[in-house]
Amino acid sequence: MAFRTRVPVRFGDVDHAGIVFYPHFFIYFHEAFEQFFGDANIAYHSLVGERRIGFPTVHIETDFQQPLRYGNSLDIELSVPRIGRRSATFRYTCYRHRDGVRACVAEITCACINMDSFQSFEIPEDLRTLFERFAT
Amino acid sequence: MAFRTRVPVRFGDVDHAGIVFYPHFFIYFHEAFEQFFGDANIAYHSLVGERRIGFPTVHIETDFQQPLRYGNSLDIELSVPRIGRRSATFRYTCYRHRDGVRACVAEITCACINMDSFQSFEIPEDLRTLFERFAT
Amino acid sequence: MAFRTRVPVRFGDVDHAGIVFYPHFFIYFHEAFEQFFGDANIAYHSLVGERRIGFPTVHIETDFQQPLRYGNSLDIELSVPRIGRRSATFRYTCYRHRDGVRACVAEITCACINMDSFQSFEIPEDLRTLFERFAT
Amino acid sequence: MAFRTRVPVRFGDVDHAGIVFYPHFFIYFHEAFEQFFGDANIAYHSLVGERRIGFPTVHIETDFQQPLRYGNSLDIELSVPRIGRRSATFRYTCYRHRDGVRACVAEITCACINMDSFQSFEIPEDLRTLFERFAT
Repeated sequence: MAFRTRVPVRFGDVDHAGIVFYPHFFIYFHEAFEQFFGDANIAYHSLVGERRIGFPTVHIETDFQQPLRYGNSLDIELSVPRIGRRSATFRYTCYRHRDGVRACVAEITCACINMDSFQSFEIPEDLRTLFERFAT
Repeated sequence: MAFRTRVPVRFGDVDHAGIVFYPHFFIYFHEAFEQFFGDANIAYHSLVGERRIGFPTVHIETDFQQPLRYGNSLDIELSVPRIGRRSATFRYTCYRHRDGVRACVAEITCACINMDSFQSFEIPEDLRTLFERFAT
Repeated sequence: MAFRTRVPVRFGDVDHAGIVFYPHFFIYFHEAFEQFFGDANIAYHSLVGERRIGFPTVHIETDFQQPLRYGNSLDIELSVPRIGRRSATFRYTCYRHRDGVRACVAEITCACINMDSFQSFEIPEDLRTLFERFAT
Repeated sequence: MAFRTRVPVRFGDVDHAGIVFYPHFFIYFHEAFEQFFGDANIAYHSLVGERRIGFPTVHIETDFQQPLRYGNSLDIELSVPRIGRRSATFRYTCYRHRDGVRACVAEITCACINMDSFQSFEIPEDLRTLFERFAT
């Protein structure tokens, strides 16, 4: 199962070539990531601010297949292909809204860390359960 | 006297209209602001991180006169038209590099605050002296 | 009457001081601006891309009253205090969601331009009608 | 041989966790990429704007090893591990300035495209020669 959300391309997200400047895709993915937690009633800002749990990115693989432009929206499917003890990999499969053309696929591996020590630790049970619901 | 610096327009700074998306001008101004301190051997990150002094923006007036494009650079003149007890106003007069066309003028008023309490306090003497060197 | 929308503070919008880096407010305002048109069934990207009409910012006045943090959302009220022949001023009054504390007020004047010539021209009738619905 | 440049972490580049929000690394890489061309007297904006040649990103692999903070600078080494007919892979090895701790390594594959047709075509000879100077 995948978590689905939609993110619009915003006016300032394009570059001199008129297409989405690719670093913005990672901002879109993070928005999807935050909504993924929010949808499970876990406010990401509380996770970070109160429980002091963070998920910094340690590895990325991304294929960009189709450029997007201002006026497009991105349909993002978020799933969890790998759940380790102290890290997990999140897959973002992105389609251009309306015509469904695949724009990109990214696999982003995040460590589970304590925000005070910046040391990794075991993914807490409630988060593991959430990730497993979206395992592929 | 004005502090002078140059900032390039970067690839991702433009918008769908092909001109610098105006929020980026404020990022350029902040870069100039950081360099203004750095040039006086005051590392802005130490000011914030160690001395716990911050200058959040409380008021802005800006006139945009000429759009800029990717490939342009911005010559910024930073001066200090008003130095109050707990705040100061910084003026950024910006010219397009090479032809000297004026692109924009901004007056940005910043409070001097303690970064822990977020309360304003009197501008420390060394910073006041710096600001006075660039008073207009 | 004001157009109302809500924009969340995103993870990467804060600065080293832990508060929203103020250039991001202008990005939020532009999102509200785009939604303002969209709500009237005028897709802003078509306005720019097909009708070749743009609204570059020529003047800004902004008061920042309260810093926002990650986890906050911004309730934005957009109204149109001044409608000229070739320009209009849009007011963004922003409240922190939930407690309603006023975070900032911005008046942003935009010229109405032809996107090909970058020359200003008279605001088209349908847009003038839209702006008048939200005049204050 | 590698092309070397330095990029400072800017005030607004950090996230709620106080470290560089990772999409900004790709902005840093693009700055290095533009300087890489500029250093060879090829203005990237002319390449795109006049010669109508672009290098959109088609594949990314990145390892993040050490978080960076505001106040840090990034020493970037850019080399070209793979030069194909219509694409090339650029490697960015990044060190934290002063202590030389490795922060991240990214391999970014870009297609060589015509900016009008968005079709790939053979890398022009002068650019191939440049890339070969930095082949690894």
